[in-house]
Amino acid sequence: MRAARPCDAPAPRGFAEAEYVARTKAAQAAMARAGLGALLLTTEADLRYFTGFLTRFWESPTRPWFLVLPAQGDPIAVIPAIGAALMARTWVRDIRTWRAPDPADDGVSLLADTLNEVAAGAPVGTPMGLESHLRMPLADWHRVTQALRGPVVPDGGIVAGLRAVKSPAEVAKIETACAIAGRTFDRVGNFAAEGVPLSRVFREFQRTALEEGADWVPYLAGGAGPGGYADVISPASGDPLMRGDVLMLDTGLVHDGYFCDFDRNFCIGSASAPVRAGLARLIDAVDAAAEAIRPNQTRAADIFRIMDNVVTKGAGGTEAGRLGHGLGMQLTEGLSLIPGDVTVLRPGMVLTLEPGIDMGDGRILVHEEDILVTETGCRFLSPRAGREPVIL
Amino acid sequence: MRAARPCDAPAPRGFAEAEYVARTKAAQAAMARAGLGALLLTTEADLRYFTGFLTRFWESPTRPWFLVLPAQGDPIAVIPAIGAALMARTWVRDIRTWRAPDPADDGVSLLADTLNEVAAGAPVGTPMGLESHLRMPLADWHRVTQALRGPVVPDGGIVAGLRAVKSPAEVAKIETACAIAGRTFDRVGNFAAEGVPLSRVFREFQRTALEEGADWVPYLAGGAGPGGYADVISPASGDPLMRGDVLMLDTGLVHDGYFCDFDRNFCIGSASAPVRAGLARLIDAVDAAAEAIRPNQTRAADIFRIMDNVVTKGAGGTEAGRLGHGLGMQLTEGLSLIPGDVTVLRPGMVLTLEPGIDMGDGRILVHEEDILVTETGCRFLSPRAGREPVIL
Repeated sequence: MRAARPCDAPAPRGFAEAEYVARTKAAQAAMARAGLGALLLTTEADLRYFTGFLTRFWESPTRPWFLVLPAQGDPIAVIPAIGAALMARTWVRDIRTWRAPDPADDGVSLLADTLNEVAAGAPVGTPMGLESHLRMPLADWHRVTQALRGPVVPDGGIVAGLRAVKSPAEVAKIETACAIAGRTFDRVGNFAAEGVPLSRVFREFQRTALEEGADWVPYLAGGAGPGGYADVISPASGDPLMRGDVLMLDTGLVHDGYFCDFDRNFCIGSASAPVRAGLARLIDAVDAAAEAIRPNQTRAADIFRIMDNVVTKGAGGTEAGRLGHGLGMQLTEGLSLIPGDVTVLRPGMVLTLEPGIDMGDGRILVHEEDILVTETGCRFLSPRAGREPVIL
Repeated sequence: MRAARPCDAPAPRGFAEAEYVARTKAAQAAMARAGLGALLLTTEADLRYFTGFLTRFWESPTRPWFLVLPAQGDPIAVIPAIGAALMARTWVRDIRTWRAPDPADDGVSLLADTLNEVAAGAPVGTPMGLESHLRMPLADWHRVTQALRGPVVPDGGIVAGLRAVKSPAEVAKIETACAIAGRTFDRVGNFAAEGVPLSRVFREFQRTALEEGADWVPYLAGGAGPGGYADVISPASGDPLMRGDVLMLDTGLVHDGYFCDFDRNFCIGSASAPVRAGLARLIDAVDAAAEAIRPNQTRAADIFRIMDNVVTKGAGGTEAGRLGHGLGMQLTEGLSLIPGDVTVLRPGMVLTLEPGIDMGDGRILVHEEDILVTETGCRFLSPRAGREPVIL
């Protein structure tokens, strides 16, 4: 047996059952206020939040998965039989399965029966708002709603609201993911240089992130170009890095089901004066935002304006549409740093600060860090980028 | 500049514009038969199929993305502004954007206006059947449907039907993904052995897959246990491999947006007689299926029964629910090898053969290969596993 390396050191995995119980009871308190007889959840993150059911099998679109949260009592999993063994290892005890896929009845009657039993005609809530999805076929959704004795209504943001405020154990997982990404960024100089194709940089970045301890690397985007890049969501091209390019890598890697999401800029060979000034201004914007945060008082829109005042002198931001967002079980979740989001920042919220600058000629520069809102202000979870550009 | 390695050798990326034109025209011919004024698509794979828009940014659930296929003419992208630069590099010319996220109107009016302009009151089709999702908030979906001048109807499987039959260029990408996974499986002995934690095996497998040329590794599952494993969808535990364990690794890695999906079994230290017999029976089942395939004649259900006769003597399969499935832009897509799927296998279809055996005591063995249905039968895309177990 080989010697254990640091990335194999046992880190606490999952959560204590008490944490799932607390999440369930908090949801049920909000459900009681909203008069809901049950909550119906269909997405990976929402199911995992209340159960701990963690699998990459969601990559397969074939089978729907359901969780029913009753007004009282423990959650009920209504899932394909292929997931029964894994679900049985969570704290969930009431696991109802069908043999999926079944073109004749792919969980529809089992779900409808469960909801009717649990809600008894009272309204069933389900997430319907911004950034929610219904992860099941629309035709089956119509069948389920028609079979219910009561109405289906929006959950009023109950689940998103709970998920937005992280427990200390959740924060620790995000912080571990950030540390893994930080160590990976520190090693970019080992494989990125003038002449190296961007595709190889992306490949080596992912390999390094895994070596540093990432469970998997669901997100890596970036770009490279003279004095800036054209966009921030592209996969790698095969083009080689050129002297004068700014290389940006933005990763969302996962540790125990929780994401980090931040980027780093690297200057190939040299950094021009405009690039130096641009990158410094992005750091200034992040500094200004971090210093301004007062928990239970500052709103998402306030943080947008503070950063926008630095990066576009208050012009209203860029086409990217926001200057940061919530973060946790998903790469992006919850609030958006936009003029129209008046969510008040509360202790335990984790968000990214992600200002961008238009450099002209279709080029932009972006910078991103991850922070935790604390009882007194905020704390950086990502190891901060320095003010001086990193030159490779 | 370092010397290029094989995995950096330029492989043809994307597709010729003619392929997207052909896909669009084929969809429009089917739309005309169904009387549809437009098709509305919301998922990653459906959008990419008609546009070539390839990004990992879908990992973020925040923003919806829409593609409108008119009855005649080219597709119209209705997308967040953050994606405009990348979409402009595809063949799509009509790109309509809004600054997302916008809590007041997150693309709803832009989409409804576009659909009303294009369909002019004729029915708008959208995928609603088995394994389809509507990737947008339900509340916004209701707003869109209410703003339409005509009805929204199921697309009748038009998109799934087109995607099920692969072009030679698509097959080449899947075959490349299979070859990358095959080379990765060949190297498992370098990092998996008695005493090594499963979590390290998973990490090294992903690193090796990237080194062998994978763009990314969205799916890796597996298990290990004495004489078999408990399920096939779990992430890695920290438990070390033990002598007598069967280790199964199942990967869906991506090359240029196309998946492979197959697994390999490894016996740690030794293979017991029941394990040898079980693995041989799984190979026999795959052989029997492959030999039986007659294009335009054999049905998915026939292949299920042929394999089930070998693995459970016709008892009807296991709780996994199916013995294989379609494969391509998604880890699983299209047909299922189940008794109830009477889809006729056509040349160009790519599917997995994935028989499983119950070994008792809650243990199973599974085996999976990827095949292409040809004009005369089928051809293996995955490098076949041998009949003798691989002992590490």
